[in-house]
Amino acid sequence: MLRIALDMDEVVADVLPKFLDLFEQYNGKRPSPEELAGRKIYDLPGGKQVRQHIYDKGFFLDLPLIPGAKEGVLELSKHYEIFFVTAAQEFRNSFEDKYDWLIQHFPFIDWRHFVFCGDKSVIQTDYLLDDHAFNLRTFSGKGLLFTAYHNLNETEFTRLDDWSEVLAFFENERTTKSTAP
Amino acid sequence: MLRIALDMDEVVADVLPKFLDLFEQYNGKRPSPEELAGRKIYDLPGGKQVRQHIYDKGFFLDLPLIPGAKEGVLELSKHYEIFFVTAAQEFRNSFEDKYDWLIQHFPFIDWRHFVFCGDKSVIQTDYLLDDHAFNLRTFSGKGLLFTAYHNLNETEFTRLDDWSEVLAFFENERTTKSTAP
Repeated sequence: MLRIALDMDEVVADVLPKFLDLFEQYNGKRPSPEELAGRKIYDLPGGKQVRQHIYDKGFFLDLPLIPGAKEGVLELSKHYEIFFVTAAQEFRNSFEDKYDWLIQHFPFIDWRHFVFCGDKSVIQTDYLLDDHAFNLRTFSGKGLLFTAYHNLNETEFTRLDDWSEVLAFFENERTTKSTAP
Repeated sequence: MLRIALDMDEVVADVLPKFLDLFEQYNGKRPSPEELAGRKIYDLPGGKQVRQHIYDKGFFLDLPLIPGAKEGVLELSKHYEIFFVTAAQEFRNSFEDKYDWLIQHFPFIDWRHFVFCGDKSVIQTDYLLDDHAFNLRTFSGKGLLFTAYHNLNETEFTRLDDWSEVLAFFENERTTKSTAP
C-alpha cells in the first residue's frame, strides 16, 4: 500500500480563522485576501503579535477542520497508508494539543502514524501534501501543494486547492497506475 | 553528509535504573541480570505495575544519560547529520519531557532534528541505532542494535554494546568508505 504524509496546519487543521480573529483583536480590522496573498499573516504590518500566540498552550487544540478533510482522509485511508506529519517541534506547547486534536478528529488513524518533527526531509512516504513549498523541496516522494493564501505565488509543485481536488488527484493516480500497460 | 537516526530510550536515555527502582518498590527486590535477559522488566512476574509508570508525567524528564552517549553524539555530529527518533506517540505525557530532556542534554542538536513518531518505518536516514529489533526490521537503511538486556537474544543485526563500540563502528564505516577503490 502506498503511503501519504499529510501536514496538519492549513491542510487538515484550519488555523486561519484564529489568526484572523487575533489580527482583528490587535489591529481593529481583518486583512483582505489581497493582503494575505503570498505571505503569512504575521508578516503583515501589525501581524507580529499574532505569531506569539502560536506558542500558547491550547492554541492548536480547538482549531476547526479544513472543509472536507475528515471525509477526505477517511476515503484516502481506504487506499493508502496515511501518516500525519507536522512540524510540531517548533512549538513545544503544541505536542499534547496536536495529539489530542488528531485523536479527536481522526480516530480511524492509528497513533503510530502521527509524526511530530521539524525537518520533514527525514520522512519517507510516497506522497506529501503540505502547504509549505520548502517542505516539498526536500521531500523524496511526490510533493503536493495544498493551497493557502501564503503559497498562492508558488508554481513549483502540483497544486490542490481543496479536499475535493485532493481526492480527485489520488483517484486519477490510482486509475492511471492500474491501467498502465 | 550521511544521516544517523538515534533512538532515545536505552540508547541515549537510561530508563533501566528507574525501572529497577520501581520493580524493587513493588516486589522488595531487584530482578537479576539472568531474569532480565531476553525480556522487558515489565514482562517479569511482578513487573506489570512498573509499566504503568511510563505513562506518568515526568517519567522521562529525569532519566540519566547512557554512559558515553553525550560525548558520543557530539563526536558523531561532526561527521553525520544526527536525528533523534523516538516512539513518543505511545505515551502522550512523554512529549514535553522528552523534548525538554533532549534540549537539556543535547543542546548542540537542533530541535528540527527531533522526531516523535510511532512506526519508525516512515523514517528515512542512512543508519538507525535502536534497542528494538522490530524497528530495525522495517528500516530501509543500515540498522544497528544497541545492546539492552531485553534484546540479548537477537542475532539479526549488527550489535553495538556501548557508545565506545558505536564510535568505533562509525569510524570504521568512514575509513572503509573513504579508502574504497
